[in-house]
Amino acid sequence: MHTFRGSRPTLEAVASHAGVSRATVSRVVNGGPGVREEVREKVRHSVEELGYVPNNAARTLVTRRTGAVAVVIAEPESRVFADPFFAQQLRGISRELSDHDTQLLLMMLERQKDYARIGRYLSAGHVDGALMFSLHGDDPLPAMALQTGLPAVFGGRPGWPGAEDDPDLLYVDTDNRGGARQAVAHLQERGRRTVAVINGPLDQTSALDRLHGYCDALGIGAHEADPSLVAQGDFTAEGGERAMARLLDVSPGLDAVFAGNDLMASGALRTLRARGRRVPDDVAVVGYDDLEPAAWAEPPLTTVRQDVEGMGGMMAELLLRRIGLAEESVDAAPPRPVVTPATLVVRDSS
Amino acid sequence: MHTFRGSRPTLEAVASHAGVSRATVSRVVNGGPGVREEVREKVRHSVEELGYVPNNAARTLVTRRTGAVAVVIAEPESRVFADPFFAQQLRGISRELSDHDTQLLLMMLERQKDYARIGRYLSAGHVDGALMFSLHGDDPLPAMALQTGLPAVFGGRPGWPGAEDDPDLLYVDTDNRGGARQAVAHLQERGRRTVAVINGPLDQTSALDRLHGYCDALGIGAHEADPSLVAQGDFTAEGGERAMARLLDVSPGLDAVFAGNDLMASGALRTLRARGRRVPDDVAVVGYDDLEPAAWAEPPLTTVRQDVEGMGGMMAELLLRRIGLAEESVDAAPPRPVVTPATLVVRDSS
Repeated sequence: MHTFRGSRPTLEAVASHAGVSRATVSRVVNGGPGVREEVREKVRHSVEELGYVPNNAARTLVTRRTGAVAVVIAEPESRVFADPFFAQQLRGISRELSDHDTQLLLMMLERQKDYARIGRYLSAGHVDGALMFSLHGDDPLPAMALQTGLPAVFGGRPGWPGAEDDPDLLYVDTDNRGGARQAVAHLQERGRRTVAVINGPLDQTSALDRLHGYCDALGIGAHEADPSLVAQGDFTAEGGERAMARLLDVSPGLDAVFAGNDLMASGALRTLRARGRRVPDDVAVVGYDDLEPAAWAEPPLTTVRQDVEGMGGMMAELLLRRIGLAEESVDAAPPRPVVTPATLVVRDSS
Repeated sequence: MHTFRGSRPTLEAVASHAGVSRATVSRVVNGGPGVREEVREKVRHSVEELGYVPNNAARTLVTRRTGAVAVVIAEPESRVFADPFFAQQLRGISRELSDHDTQLLLMMLERQKDYARIGRYLSAGHVDGALMFSLHGDDPLPAMALQTGLPAVFGGRPGWPGAEDDPDLLYVDTDNRGGARQAVAHLQERGRRTVAVINGPLDQTSALDRLHGYCDALGIGAHEADPSLVAQGDFTAEGGERAMARLLDVSPGLDAVFAGNDLMASGALRTLRARGRRVPDDVAVVGYDDLEPAAWAEPPLTTVRQDVEGMGGMMAELLLRRIGLAEESVDAAPPRPVVTPATLVVRDSS
């Protein structure tokens, strides 16, 4: 703590300590070119030694950068903290940003009216860019981001009208449709004949794409699924519990269920246990995500793995490239959306 | 989404829609006085109808406020998301801030060098104040906050030298020492004779105060605890598991253990089960916090309850008062530190 005590060290103090000019210190601190590596090293050493904190208002005037990136998750804290998906993705984002000396600011939404406030903050020049998550179809944030001209990258394929025709839109997604298709094909290969599905919120493309993958495997069109085998969940364990109960009520003969994420699958396991159905003997269960709840479940869950932490890192990387903060050769191709593969992980529940 | 489409509505458009002057709209939007409630209502209605987003750069110039408060947790994401304590406290903070139309920005620390970056962001005028958490003894953030003059409130009693003599320092804490004393006294009342303790990191005042409470109940001085009954944990379940194993190795005859939080207590339960000790028959266990892991534990944990969400709300309230954003009468007493009570909750583990 001692380095921050007492009066605040100035740029001049750093220059004098390092034996270089004020302009050189300023250039090194602001990441400007034209300073030899050994001089840079000397300045950095003096900055650390004196505990110098650059005057960022001035720094921002020069670089027009704040050194911070917002991560906006359009869900309340209680939901964000209950789903290990977000923690994993944030870990990937945070590491990548920290590697580029950029601060992550996490913003969540407690109430509907918080949208306008977040929009104001993003428009006011407090951040260099934004990563946006868990966007429901009618979410106003993408339009806000476009309007402010703030560089943005989305988590998951954006679902709003016109999104697919926007060549500048950047996002990182996983092959949700292919992953779901693999999961249901696996159940069929194990001889299951009546495979039900528990969906996440269908105003999110991840949930919709997984439902389409289920239909693909059954060889039916997107709207031809048997309604008595389709139940709506909300990506929570409690939602999965309730959905499984409804499915058993209307289709007591089902012998398998594909849940849109591991949390809903673990809720389904609870209901099956409570109703005396053995897993996988009576009913096979497959989840999606391969996060901690899958391995902890009893029995451990067959699931579809996506590299959630890696996807977070890719989002941050795309954003840093768009902002112009990532190192890259001048002739590098412009940043493009990324869709990562999905892999079936077979455990004891199927 | 439609409200944010197309060209951005101006202050003039809102004024014309509401049938009032530009100055009146500006006053209502910036929370200025002297506008009748029915006029305010009319302006608010037009703001919503048109989807007006105030130009915050200008707004900040007028009010000198950004509308945002930083919550800085000096721990990496993986730790913050694994401990329900933070989720609960953030919920309380977020609700209170949202009630005052203030945005929460969560900042966590991935690496040691992130401190300097966070210090820069806080000094650069991007936030109106800061709430700071989980501060280890040598944490540079408090000094940074003091230096920037940023209004700040701390979560937990600050432990740095001189903190207790600073009349301006604001924090919200719980009676950790009294809570621990109750926990250990309860074990003694149940006839336990050899009570061990698993500590959290002793550079945090919460962990230190709980150790002192343990000593109080045993009627010994702070440095007189039997070393073979004291094990060091780190507030994680894995740390509790390892600490319990060490305690059983050196003191196989112990008949009770007090753990500094519920996560460590649940880890201790795992070790006891693995070693074939029955809880509470052979070894009684008491935790601290009364968060979800306590109720889910097998057997459910006796623990010390603190109102974590309420404490979050109080922190936000103190900060809003210090910033001058909370409604209060002119003759209200200045904001002061708060210490909330701790209550023993007896369940099956003791």
